[in-house]
Amino acid sequence: MPRGVFSTVAHRIAALQGEVHPLHIGDTWLEPAAGCCNDDLDTRATPGLHRYAPPMGETDLLDAIVDRRGVARSRVIVTAGATGGLSAALGAVLAPGDEVLLLAPYWPLIRGIVQSQRGVPVDVPFFVGPDGGPGPLDGDDVEAVLDARRTERTVALYLNSPNNPTGRVLPAGVLDRIVAWARRHDLWLLSDEVYEDYVFAPGLRHESLADRAPERTFAAWSFSKAYGMAGNRVGYLVAPEEGELVQEVRKVAMHAYYAAPKGPQLTAARALRHGGEWLSGARDAYARAGAAAAARLGVPEAQGGTFLFLDASPVLDERGMQGLLERCIDRNLLVAPGASFGEDYAHFVRVCFTSAPPAQVARAVDVLAEILGR
Amino acid sequence: MPRGVFSTVAHRIAALQGEVHPLHIGDTWLEPAAGCCNDDLDTRATPGLHRYAPPMGETDLLDAIVDRRGVARSRVIVTAGATGGLSAALGAVLAPGDEVLLLAPYWPLIRGIVQSQRGVPVDVPFFVGPDGGPGPLDGDDVEAVLDARRTERTVALYLNSPNNPTGRVLPAGVLDRIVAWARRHDLWLLSDEVYEDYVFAPGLRHESLADRAPERTFAAWSFSKAYGMAGNRVGYLVAPEEGELVQEVRKVAMHAYYAAPKGPQLTAARALRHGGEWLSGARDAYARAGAAAAARLGVPEAQGGTFLFLDASPVLDERGMQGLLERCIDRNLLVAPGASFGEDYAHFVRVCFTSAPPAQVARAVDVLAEILGR
Repeated sequence: MPRGVFSTVAHRIAALQGEVHPLHIGDTWLEPAAGCCNDDLDTRATPGLHRYAPPMGETDLLDAIVDRRGVARSRVIVTAGATGGLSAALGAVLAPGDEVLLLAPYWPLIRGIVQSQRGVPVDVPFFVGPDGGPGPLDGDDVEAVLDARRTERTVALYLNSPNNPTGRVLPAGVLDRIVAWARRHDLWLLSDEVYEDYVFAPGLRHESLADRAPERTFAAWSFSKAYGMAGNRVGYLVAPEEGELVQEVRKVAMHAYYAAPKGPQLTAARALRHGGEWLSGARDAYARAGAAAAARLGVPEAQGGTFLFLDASPVLDERGMQGLLERCIDRNLLVAPGASFGEDYAHFVRVCFTSAPPAQVARAVDVLAEILGR
Repeated sequence: MPRGVFSTVAHRIAALQGEVHPLHIGDTWLEPAAGCCNDDLDTRATPGLHRYAPPMGETDLLDAIVDRRGVARSRVIVTAGATGGLSAALGAVLAPGDEVLLLAPYWPLIRGIVQSQRGVPVDVPFFVGPDGGPGPLDGDDVEAVLDARRTERTVALYLNSPNNPTGRVLPAGVLDRIVAWARRHDLWLLSDEVYEDYVFAPGLRHESLADRAPERTFAAWSFSKAYGMAGNRVGYLVAPEEGELVQEVRKVAMHAYYAAPKGPQLTAARALRHGGEWLSGARDAYARAGAAAAARLGVPEAQGGTFLFLDASPVLDERGMQGLLERCIDRNLLVAPGASFGEDYAHFVRVCFTSAPPAQVARAVDVLAEILGR
């Protein structure tokens, strides 16, 4: 993803020996819940296990999603991960050259998804200031900040809460203001809620935009991080309450990858119905790993999600971010450079505290803390 | 797919009881080869089985593809089925409004794929004439037919051999003329070769455009029909020998669905390496089913692929294709209406002779033969 920076250090990474700490990727290390692994589905007992799934989702999975979300079945589309859902939503609403506001820093893929669908991404620094201090999220000028980046070509706004990479969770009051602003300007909302199950901060809870602004929200979920199934490529989208629009999204998705894979849809349905206990355990384990990492690095704990986002400017020398990446690689540590998360954050690094078992993450964080002088 | 016609008969289909004959879908009924099913991969013995695959393919699968095709690894992209590959290729080369010639009749999804990528599909009747007789494929005016549909906006030509729906296999001489014509006008070639393993006619063999015109061909393959894995959503693309273009295709694919699913990639690698014997058996079984169907319906056998395409005009009454579909549905038989395969073929029907076990296909074909008066 951060091809520009990483490609210059690829040969160093390839030459690493011994234990490598992959804190640069966003992934979760736990295996799926019992009964939800690929090999828990017996080919002989599951007729047609390797044949086409219906393009828009297996009945079992659609039923489980409708029960979980309490939305009309006609609004639900099973997709190839959240990526497949957000890409299809943008394909349905964008005309070439339309602008999409991205609350930054953001999930790196969203920028390229907008561009792939012929749109123009427009960064809106929001969750944290480029100086590492408070951003608009913590101020009282949310509308002014959004107004400043809106143009006549703006058609949609993307937000992700719990946030990758900052770990921030948007409170209800801020969501209400964003919704009111989007209504005033008649914009679509793309709400990336894939970390909804991982809110750690006491007193905070995830609030879904699918419930708050059903007339204009495409909300995306995934089984990747929630249930340890990133390789399975299954997620879902809840689309606005508008039949023709939903059909258009279905068309774009079908013509991009036809359907999400069948076996993984069936295990996703099991996870949604029976994965509650596993999820509690995963949430506790991830929260502990995140708290330990934050303490060692001397930063606030993540409110949710699986990442910490750190301002590295105090330790950047004349070689800039590339020099820092090389210092990390020399100690078998990989971190994600901030430029992937928004144009204002090139001096940040992101670390994922769930990409390896807690003991390995702790060793890796120790190395990073030394390099950052913390 | 044929929403216009099928949606008017959906309630009839939903009300069917007893054995329903699904000859309308393109699918294969055999389970994957031993060792190549989802549950043949043991979660405990396969570290990271449910974690992300590298976006452009698992090493095992890429190795197997390179060995099979004899092309440079840099040209290979593992995709979400052939759909994911062809869609990404078009996303990389099309500007909005560009025209793509489709040799008709064609695989129904390709029309929507071109449109999803903001292109304009242009039908070129080719494999069979609208009257059910010979098309340009059997004449000597291939270039004239292509010239007649080419404009200043034409950038690519799509062809599928062995052909869905006609069962025709393009001979080397015709491919050479198409390649020479595409070179003369500097057009991309999209070659859909997903049925390459299913050529039945003695003396005919599949010829790949990836070898013939490597400078301009995107050739797509899939494990769906070849190895009984349609639900797994794994295929691959061999792109032209041009580094930047390949990177662009990778980007479009990554931003549409991130990666093909991991477990299915690993079983696809096994199938490619060890599925030869299974494939021979499948080919023989499908060939016998196709020959029996053709004999009963009084049409030539399919040279390859899994379909027969029949001119139904002698039995269409004032209710047209919808009336014929209803007569079929009343006998628990589903067939695909010809309009999905090209604008000139609305009076045809397609039947798939591999979508159910041979005995069921034979029963279904009997019903169809009676309805068609054969």
